[in-house]
Amino acid sequence: MVLLAPELADVERLLAERAASPVTTIPDLSSYLIAAGGKRLRPVLTLASARAVGGKGGDAVCKLAAAVEFIHTATLLHDDVVDDSDLRRGKAAAKNVWGASASILVGDFLFARSFTLMTETRDLRILDILSRASCVIAEGEVRQLAAIGKPDLALPEYMAIVEAKTAALFEAAARAGAYTATDDDDAADAMGEYGRRLGRAFQIVDDLLDYGGLTSVIGKTVGDDFRERKITLPVIYAREAGSAADREFWDRVMGEPDQRDSDLAHAIHLIRATGAAERTLETARTESAAARAALARAARGPCHDELGELADQSVNRAF
Amino acid sequence: MVLLAPELADVERLLAERAASPVTTIPDLSSYLIAAGGKRLRPVLTLASARAVGGKGGDAVCKLAAAVEFIHTATLLHDDVVDDSDLRRGKAAAKNVWGASASILVGDFLFARSFTLMTETRDLRILDILSRASCVIAEGEVRQLAAIGKPDLALPEYMAIVEAKTAALFEAAARAGAYTATDDDDAADAMGEYGRRLGRAFQIVDDLLDYGGLTSVIGKTVGDDFRERKITLPVIYAREAGSAADREFWDRVMGEPDQRDSDLAHAIHLIRATGAAERTLETARTESAAARAALARAARGPCHDELGELADQSVNRAF
Repeated sequence: MVLLAPELADVERLLAERAASPVTTIPDLSSYLIAAGGKRLRPVLTLASARAVGGKGGDAVCKLAAAVEFIHTATLLHDDVVDDSDLRRGKAAAKNVWGASASILVGDFLFARSFTLMTETRDLRILDILSRASCVIAEGEVRQLAAIGKPDLALPEYMAIVEAKTAALFEAAARAGAYTATDDDDAADAMGEYGRRLGRAFQIVDDLLDYGGLTSVIGKTVGDDFRERKITLPVIYAREAGSAADREFWDRVMGEPDQRDSDLAHAIHLIRATGAAERTLETARTESAAARAALARAARGPCHDELGELADQSVNRAF
Repeated sequence: MVLLAPELADVERLLAERAASPVTTIPDLSSYLIAAGGKRLRPVLTLASARAVGGKGGDAVCKLAAAVEFIHTATLLHDDVVDDSDLRRGKAAAKNVWGASASILVGDFLFARSFTLMTETRDLRILDILSRASCVIAEGEVRQLAAIGKPDLALPEYMAIVEAKTAALFEAAARAGAYTATDDDDAADAMGEYGRRLGRAFQIVDDLLDYGGLTSVIGKTVGDDFRERKITLPVIYAREAGSAADREFWDRVMGEPDQRDSDLAHAIHLIRATGAAERTLETARTESAAARAALARAARGPCHDELGELADQSVNRAF
């Protein structure tokens, strides 16, 4: 998205500037994660949503985009501690370098900084949307925690978790982004729905990629969710479509916790053999199509086509 | 503070209402801590500061007071995990009942809820003051983390930690509370300074009480800071005034970590015998007097006398 390049550079500058602190652990730890990159998907979504409804860039939307990325980064830092994961963005998790305590507290700092940034936009709509979304994200994380090790997790509960822990921030970013450019509630609602559907597609595909996608994607780390006994859509579908023996397998590796060396390979095998991988992708495709449909309801502005492509890409990376 | 009773009842109602969530762990865990009470010192400070500059109560100041208490509660939840403390407000720490992960995530939820509450006041000054204070608090916590196990911690660094982790929220509560009632920056500054000094006095006395105060206060838990090897003012003064043998003692128990059964009793003995306890109290008295002086700069409204007494009480509880 060439049009967004100068704005994205501004966002990068803000991310570096606002993670600064005389307490050096804070910039050290933040930049470890922030400089590691990630896709900046949420800032792109924020900036592009504003452009799509006629926005012209500017200070407020860049601050909002940086605030959204800070919320996301804070969540990652806390997730690493909660999940006890050892890797993040291909590197040792921050908690393995600086300790869990520093990860918790720097997460708190970034979360606070995100609210300072949003306050600087002087737009109460933005604060309203993002503070509510932050509540929902935390609710989703607690909900996910309660779902760990429950192989019979119901599909609606899985979707509710995805909705809260991932889609809520995508929706808020797109909706608030739109409001930086327009007062038209319908346009903002359409962009919010686009973000929500994109977030759902994105998370569902992420959950599939954790089992190697449709065909194992080379170089990707797999099995994090499996080891943490998070029940995700590929597992729900595979267990549903499987034999009694399959069900016993899932109940043992997910429920008990009794995992052996060959279990992850068998889980991946089952997810493909039962058609669960294809079905998961199909569910993501439905969300991606819904995202495109919502986008079509918003007025056509710059970045419109790119947002459509983003909806496609969220699914296509599963191959 | 009889005048504040109806407002405090409103704040209690808000605390219960806004900790509600369909995800039952959230209200369960929150109310465990919130219903356990605590002194509601920060809501009282918020409400009284508004009254002191002519406020008449109302929705905004109650929401602000509840938001401040949520920030405080979120901090407590994260502190318990960071400090690995087993007791809080005389009960098992929430993390020992619900686990560290739930404590982290419910803390995040309450922090997000506090920003929702503040956004509802529609007052950007409040959001500005409190979001900045939240950054400073997190900075203070990280700073405190870095100071653990350093027996030669310099006095200015100790004071900077107290300022950030405790006084910043007291200051923000008092300043923002004042702004709900007045546009007079001088009055708000005076109340902010009152809050800041009160917070410093309060934390210094807290640190003294962790070694039993001037004479062991019966029923009080002592030794938390000692066991966590937090370097606080009584230790700094006792080490400074002590013999070479004393210094060796402090360097062993705080620096190494090599604590034996009788060490806490000896630490308490040294803190009293070297006059460090008296000197710590004297430092708190100076802060308390500065709080009273700041208060005198604000116009006299209701609650003025009570705030003066609060400054005295912050010190007098050391006996």
